[in-house]
Amino acid sequence: MRLWKYVTLAHGAGGKETSDIIRSLIRGRVPREYWSVEGGTGLDELDDSALIPLGGDRYMAVTIDTYTVKPLRFPGGDLGRLAASGTINDLLMAGARPLAALDGVVVEEGFPMDDLAGILESYISTLTGEGVALIGGDFKVMPKGQLDGVVIASAGIGLVEGKPIRDSEIRPGDKVIVTGYLGDHGAAILAAQRTLGVEFDVKSDVKPLTGLMLPLLERYRHAIHGAGDPTRGGLAMTLNEWAEKTGTVILLEEYRVPVREQVREYAEMLGVDPLSLASEGVAVLAVDGGLAEEVLSFIKSLGYEEAAIVATVHEAKDPRYAGRVVAESVTGGYRIVEPPSGEIVPRIC
Amino acid sequence: MRLWKYVTLAHGAGGKETSDIIRSLIRGRVPREYWSVEGGTGLDELDDSALIPLGGDRYMAVTIDTYTVKPLRFPGGDLGRLAASGTINDLLMAGARPLAALDGVVVEEGFPMDDLAGILESYISTLTGEGVALIGGDFKVMPKGQLDGVVIASAGIGLVEGKPIRDSEIRPGDKVIVTGYLGDHGAAILAAQRTLGVEFDVKSDVKPLTGLMLPLLERYRHAIHGAGDPTRGGLAMTLNEWAEKTGTVILLEEYRVPVREQVREYAEMLGVDPLSLASEGVAVLAVDGGLAEEVLSFIKSLGYEEAAIVATVHEAKDPRYAGRVVAESVTGGYRIVEPPSGEIVPRIC
Repeated sequence: MRLWKYVTLAHGAGGKETSDIIRSLIRGRVPREYWSVEGGTGLDELDDSALIPLGGDRYMAVTIDTYTVKPLRFPGGDLGRLAASGTINDLLMAGARPLAALDGVVVEEGFPMDDLAGILESYISTLTGEGVALIGGDFKVMPKGQLDGVVIASAGIGLVEGKPIRDSEIRPGDKVIVTGYLGDHGAAILAAQRTLGVEFDVKSDVKPLTGLMLPLLERYRHAIHGAGDPTRGGLAMTLNEWAEKTGTVILLEEYRVPVREQVREYAEMLGVDPLSLASEGVAVLAVDGGLAEEVLSFIKSLGYEEAAIVATVHEAKDPRYAGRVVAESVTGGYRIVEPPSGEIVPRIC
Repeated sequence: MRLWKYVTLAHGAGGKETSDIIRSLIRGRVPREYWSVEGGTGLDELDDSALIPLGGDRYMAVTIDTYTVKPLRFPGGDLGRLAASGTINDLLMAGARPLAALDGVVVEEGFPMDDLAGILESYISTLTGEGVALIGGDFKVMPKGQLDGVVIASAGIGLVEGKPIRDSEIRPGDKVIVTGYLGDHGAAILAAQRTLGVEFDVKSDVKPLTGLMLPLLERYRHAIHGAGDPTRGGLAMTLNEWAEKTGTVILLEEYRVPVREQVREYAEMLGVDPLSLASEGVAVLAVDGGLAEEVLSFIKSLGYEEAAIVATVHEAKDPRYAGRVVAESVTGGYRIVEPPSGEIVPRIC
């Protein structure tokens, strides 16, 4: 898979090209026995967190992400809140209780100390507000002009007690629930990066999902077969990854997907599919079909009023559709939802 | 401690200013109960790795660092080997067996794909060569001109079975062993960054210390009271951190410190103290005084011929010297070895 001579923005956009580059440039170079710790998961699953077995029915979940969002402060949040929320949510999506984080901060020489303090304050208070400790880190400075602003790497450690969530366990009959409006983060960053002369006041949805996921796991851990947060690449990417991983067909009832009218219009104006827009405070859950309505009610009772069942997982009877996502419109038409491709929004997260 | 309005290169140099900024800007904002996971260590110790208790005498060691070295390929190694070695060594310094790593790669748009592949190949082969799995990661791209080249964040997970190494356990009577020539990495990067018209062919010492530390831990775990790798800030910083943390005085016999003649001359020419120059393949160990000679022989038998006992930990009888490092010259004179301060070498690691 040697298709490019130079790295492009698309390689970092979280869509098809990112997936390709992780598979070819990274996973393809790691001997298979080193894709995970024995008895755990890692590059084999490529889920939001890797799992390390601790014996019995306990696992340590671990995750890392780098955060490069621009602007550093945006409607609804900032780099610090984004990094902390992203770390926490990646752990939750594995069925883990987040325990601790570690941060690697890289800053450009000359960056105002007060602004940096604000970002770090935001990172720390988001973590500790959810009971997550900050147990280590690193601090580097790059000469002026060699880095635009600040980048934060954030790693998270969580504890899984009971069944971990591994997206490969998604199966035909599962229903897919999304827990809130999709695309708010992506649209808010797009609007902050480009001035189009239209009014747009949607804020990023960036937030930790601890208050949603911990009660949900306590009650319905066994009913949740898959979980992901639709960040870069949006719902379109999450569902495509699931379908591909399990060889199923995911039938998306597109008209059921909760998207704010303003986000929908804005995306249309820019020629972007709202299904590809990033969310930073939404979970996508593949839930046992028989329990989906009950789980949905429980999610709504936790204050996630816009939560909705949006898709169903099917066995691929026609092999041409195995691993694909098919969207059904309100008028009954069908279209393939491709994994997002190309440059969507640079420095979205 | 609000001393600066803007971030300076010194804040990232790994010396006094880095220590100050981590304490004021980060640790100072984290409520004390969130400095570690209960029963473990973290921002309280600020060691190379944090510890999470797993029950019994087992701990998970976790670490993160970002790597920004320039040039990306340098005599003796490259960014990938540096990141993998640094991650492995930080785990070993806690008395852990390295199990797994996760990487966050941030690349500039337009970066040549072959060069990136080489760096990742080097990262991966260094990990797997030491039996360490790569279980997860992230890939981001920043627009051209917003990042100079590539930055890698690397997190590591290790397992401690038995007594972990916590530098706060260093005590009077301990001897300090360094396991090889100091400053080779710092000097090699300095030479690669600046052309001074002198011949300089010392290579970076960057390497994982698994082959040294695992046998050493198996045999002498209880004799090792402290361990650190003298990267940014060099031996001067490691010893100052230890003295400060334990309120002891560390008496350094400077003439016993193994430094290559070429490195010493080069450092002198640049007005840099070789004690402040980074190493990337050396361990500094605080060892029970009664066993130090035996441990030293064992280290040499593993092929680390230049290893030497260079310092002794003393009780601070005079409180003015508590927490200080004092160097004794071959002629019997004394000087205080201050923690390194100011910009030493930008993007050294």
